[in-house]
Order: sequence, then structure tokens, then C-alpha cells
Amino acid sequence: MTAARTEDGSPGRHDVDRGTRRGEFDLITSLFAPLARRHPAALNLADDAAVLPPPEGGQHTVVSMDTLVSGVHFLPDDPADLVARKAMRVNLSDMAAMGARPLGVFLSVALSPAEGDTWMDRFTEGLERDLGDFDMGLLGGDTVATPGPATFSITILGTVPPGTHLSRGGGRPGDRLWVSGTIGDGALGLKALQGELPFLQEDMRAALADRYRLPRPRVALGLGLRGLATAALDISDGLVADLDHMCRASGCAARVETASVPLSTPVRRCIDMDAAWLDAVLGGGDDYELLFAVPPARDTAVHALGVRLGIPLTPVGELIPAAPGEATSETRVCLVGPTGAPLTPRASGYRHGWD
Amino acid sequence: MTAARTEDGSPGRHDVDRGTRRGEFDLITSLFAPLARRHPAALNLADDAAVLPPPEGGQHTVVSMDTLVSGVHFLPDDPADLVARKAMRVNLSDMAAMGARPLGVFLSVALSPAEGDTWMDRFTEGLERDLGDFDMGLLGGDTVATPGPATFSITILGTVPPGTHLSRGGGRPGDRLWVSGTIGDGALGLKALQGELPFLQEDMRAALADRYRLPRPRVALGLGLRGLATAALDISDGLVADLDHMCRASGCAARVETASVPLSTPVRRCIDMDAAWLDAVLGGGDDYELLFAVPPARDTAVHALGVRLGIPLTPVGELIPAAPGEATSETRVCLVGPTGAPLTPRASGYRHGWD
Repeated sequence: MTAARTEDGSPGRHDVDRGTRRGEFDLITSLFAPLARRHPAALNLADDAAVLPPPEGGQHTVVSMDTLVSGVHFLPDDPADLVARKAMRVNLSDMAAMGARPLGVFLSVALSPAEGDTWMDRFTEGLERDLGDFDMGLLGGDTVATPGPATFSITILGTVPPGTHLSRGGGRPGDRLWVSGTIGDGALGLKALQGELPFLQEDMRAALADRYRLPRPRVALGLGLRGLATAALDISDGLVADLDHMCRASGCAARVETASVPLSTPVRRCIDMDAAWLDAVLGGGDDYELLFAVPPARDTAVHALGVRLGIPLTPVGELIPAAPGEATSETRVCLVGPTGAPLTPRASGYRHGWD
Repeated sequence: MTAARTEDGSPGRHDVDRGTRRGEFDLITSLFAPLARRHPAALNLADDAAVLPPPEGGQHTVVSMDTLVSGVHFLPDDPADLVARKAMRVNLSDMAAMGARPLGVFLSVALSPAEGDTWMDRFTEGLERDLGDFDMGLLGGDTVATPGPATFSITILGTVPPGTHLSRGGGRPGDRLWVSGTIGDGALGLKALQGELPFLQEDMRAALADRYRLPRPRVALGLGLRGLATAALDISDGLVADLDHMCRASGCAARVETASVPLSTPVRRCIDMDAAWLDAVLGGGDDYELLFAVPPARDTAVHALGVRLGIPLTPVGELIPAAPGEATSETRVCLVGPTGAPLTPRASGYRHGWD
């Protein structure tokens, strides 16, 4: 992290009013440097980079990067501490998906004029809390100004023993498909925050909103699935889309019994009101639960893992051989409704986009 | 890198018109995945993260992150290939400053509606060229849409033998200060692109603009300065500001003879026209040259290094003991003009900002 002095009035640069906002240097020294003390590799954020010794025991380093944009991945009026924690947890979820133990993060902060000192104080509180809860260091990063929406990029580093990382591509026909927790809370949490679920009781709306704003990355589960799961990923794009990714990577197809998909009480209430909400549940993102494939012979071990960690683990279907001919996401992921008939999501219900 | 499927019409998400723009999945498979083949750790961008074995020989990993925002760190009409290469090179410059050998990058791309397929094709050409020229892999990243300006975050990884990395904090009074190349070309290149240097010949304006758009990170010089320099950093914020960072980190002050600062012919022409341009030269950023401190006993070795690499290395002053009392950037960095009198940059010439 470096402090910036920019030439006055240079129109190609974006200065920040000193009256309402700390300069970058102040931001780093007053807010971020204390968080960097958790790990010596950060060099107190005083140098051009962090320097990390090799992980102990020849472990491999797992690295991932995820970016959140205000108004796209979180709502502009979401509490700043929860924005920080969501940014951290979206990245932690990638570590969970890989079976990696989180080590630390690099944080790039692009702030718009809307994020003042108070907002950043609260953002930093959120950072500090999750760095502590997940035992990670703030290793470095960058702070810049943007005329656009606030944008937070995190690069997360973790470790795995050689050859033990989970991947998307190891699933085989016959493997049972499992999901952790409940599905659809994130997507319907966004709907709740947008006022689209007025028929729900307020406490249910709040529970869903909380799931949207604060993912629960399944780090311990990811560690426990090493040597057990043949394929795994985190559900960030939606159950159907992410299962499709697993199928593509594993060279097979999948069948999911929609009646088996674990739902929270608020989500079930929505579907009871209008079955069309099922599309949002199966297609919406932001669950950050794990989807994983395990040969049925290991059913008992999976159950035991769920009990040991106190995480509900639910079988929802199985991997099957790929259909002959050119595969599409429709032929790869076969949803079976409660009557046993194939269920096709509304054509308009899914679209490739960017998130 | 993950492909996204978002629910149609979800107002909290930002979909991209499929007619004019590839989806994230297409972008990754068609453009970025081929670049990832350069390094096996990328897992072909098909998983949730990259997995890196420990560096050979117990080397340490050096990690840095820098973000560029359109309209802030580059001009919206800069050629897309040069934008990609500038984003890479700003990060490579951090590796140079640490004396690290670059290994690979993670790239987060936040695209606005202004960057269509043609723009991204050219951006990818720039990426590919610099990945090749600097022998690096594309290890992973993220692609998202933003309603704001295009924003590119890169996290770069490099390696150093244990204990050999360069830092900002090792300088001592008496060390000679050196800079590589010429100073001020980046800052005046921006001015040229903004039409503020109409008095210059067109080829001189073009030469300066090229320096603004395409930094030359001094990676080989950084490697050569291991064991030679007591302190080093790259000049991204401007010579005076970055020297101040070195002084703070090293606990000393500095004296710079401004007449010694190496200038290119176009920059010298500007100052000959109006001495006030010297402020932009000393205070403007985007040089990406190295500033380093070396005890005078090693002068010959520094000269030899410059000759071997074909890089001009110029002594510009020395580190001196910190002044008693509370230090400010004005007392830490003492500029001495051609007559030997102290030179104070115009008060308005410098301001803390974020870049």
C-alpha cells in the first residue's frame, strides 16, 4: 500500500476533498495498518508489497480474487461493516470450495464521494471482525478514488497440503450430490430488501436479508471434505448454474430432485405463496453454500461430518452420464419435480450475465 | 474465475446485453483461458482458485495489488492494449521495487457498457503481449459489470530468495540517492494528452504520451539491486512524494540537487519554456522509475549495473540525518536549486490525494 501525493488540479486524477475524507495515507495508517499487525508478511503496509515465507510442510498456496461493486453485488445502503464482511466472505467461500485454510487477504478499495470517514470507520470494523473470526491477516492492497460506485476487490490466500485441494472436475456418474445449509435465502433476501416480499412477516424478511448481506462461508466444511468429495464448488451463481459448472468440468450430467433441495422456513413460505419463487431459489445467486459430489459408499462419512460441524448436509440428486450429442446446460442439469416429471425453469428465468 | 448466470430482471444485478457483449463465461473461455495455459497453477481458470506449489529453493513470495480506474489512472480513450499493459506494468513496477522476479497475475476486470467486444479483444492482446514479455502466467481473477468507469485490479506474485527483498526502510544518512531513466515524462505525458503542451513538436508530445501510457517497469534493475541498495521504491506518486516515503520508512531526511535530476529532451524543452513545469516533474506521478539509496562505497558497482543493463542510473542527492523536532514532508525532503539555494515547490503544487 502506498500513499499518494498528486499534483494539484491535474484533471486526469481524482483528488478527494481533504475536509471530508482522509487522504489515502491517513486511511492506511489510521485504519488499515493496525489490521496488518496480525501477520508479519504485511510489513506493516509500509512497503510496496508483502513478503510471505513458503507455507509450512510444503503446503501449496491457494489464491482467488473476487470483486464487489456497489449496486451490483451489494446495495448502496447496506451497512458498511456488512459490506466489508460480505467482501471477505465471498472470497472465504472460494477457499471453502477449494478445501483451503485461509491465510490472509489483499484489499483494493475504490471509494466514491459517497463513502465518507464514518462509512470507512464502520467498514474497517467489519474487516477487523472477520479477520479475527477467520484468523487471517490483512496483507496489503491499494486505495484509490473512483467517480463511479464503490468497488472492493479482495485477493485471498490460503493453504492446502499438496494434492488435497477440492476441484470442480473430479465428479463421476453415480456420485451423490449434496448441498450445505439451505438454498435460495440469498436471492430472496435481495428480493426482501427490494420490497418484493411484502406478504412475509418482518422477522422472516429480516432473516432472508441477513443471508443476502452476510454469507456464511463453509470453511470448516471445505476442510472436512478433503479426501471425501470428488468435486466441490460454492454456490455463488445459483444452484443450477453452479451445478452446470461442475458437470462441464467433470464431463457428466446431473439429476436434481427439486423436492429434496433444503429450504429455510421463509423461503418455503414464499414458494407456498407462489410456486414461481422456486425459479429464484434454484437460479438466484448469493447462497455461498457448498455443492459437492461424493460416491454413495461414503454417505455415512458425510453424515458424520455434518453432525460434527453442526452443518445440515442434504443429498439433492446425483451425477449421471453425459447425454450423447452436443450438451447444453439444459441437457446437463435435469431438474425433476415433486411428481417425478422433468421441470424446466421458465425460459426467462435464467440468463447469462456477469456478476 | 467463475461464470455467472443471473436471474432475469433482478434489479440488484447488472446484466450485460448479450447482443453486444460476451457473457462472463464467454469472456473467460474465449479470451482469458488461452492466456492461463502459460502456468499450470491457473488450473485453466476452470476452478474457484489457483493452486501454487511452494517456490523452488525456499524462496519467499512477494505479493502486491494495484487498481486502475478509467479517467483516473488512464484516459478513457487510451488504446485498450495499452490500458492492459499499463495495468500489468504498474504492478510489475512494484515487483521491481521489491527486487522480486515476477511469477504471475490475478486480474479483476470491472467493465462498463463502454467496453465492447472489440475493446476487450484489444485489451487481451495487450495482456498476452506483456505476459509473454515478462514471462508471467495469468493465474486467475474475476470479471464483473459496473455502471461506473472500467476498473482493473491486478494482484501480482513474484519470488525472492529469503532475506534479499528490497525495502523502503533500510536507507541511512550518507547513502547516495539514485534514480533510473528520466523523471517527469509520465506527468508531462498526461499534460501532452490533455493538450497542455501545444508549444512542443508533435514527436516530442508523442514520446511523452507514450511514457504516460506505457510504463517501463525496471524489473531487471530491481533484481540487480539486491544486496546493493539499502532502500528502494518505484516512483509512482512523484519523486518528492516517494522520496518522502523512503525518508519516513528509513527514519532520515534527504537532500536532492534538482539540477541533477535526469530529464528527457521533451521535458527539458518544457522547463526551458517555463520553469514552473519543474513542479510537475518533481511532483507528478507515473514515472515508474526506481529511486534507490546506496552507500557511496558502492558507486562503481551501481555504475557497472547500469552499463550492464543499458539503463541510465543517475545520482540525484543523498540521505541526511533527520532534522530535530517534528518532521514534515517539507523538512524531510530538501530540494536544492541550481544556485545552491533551497527550492520550495509552489504551495499549491502538491496536495494529498488518492491515486
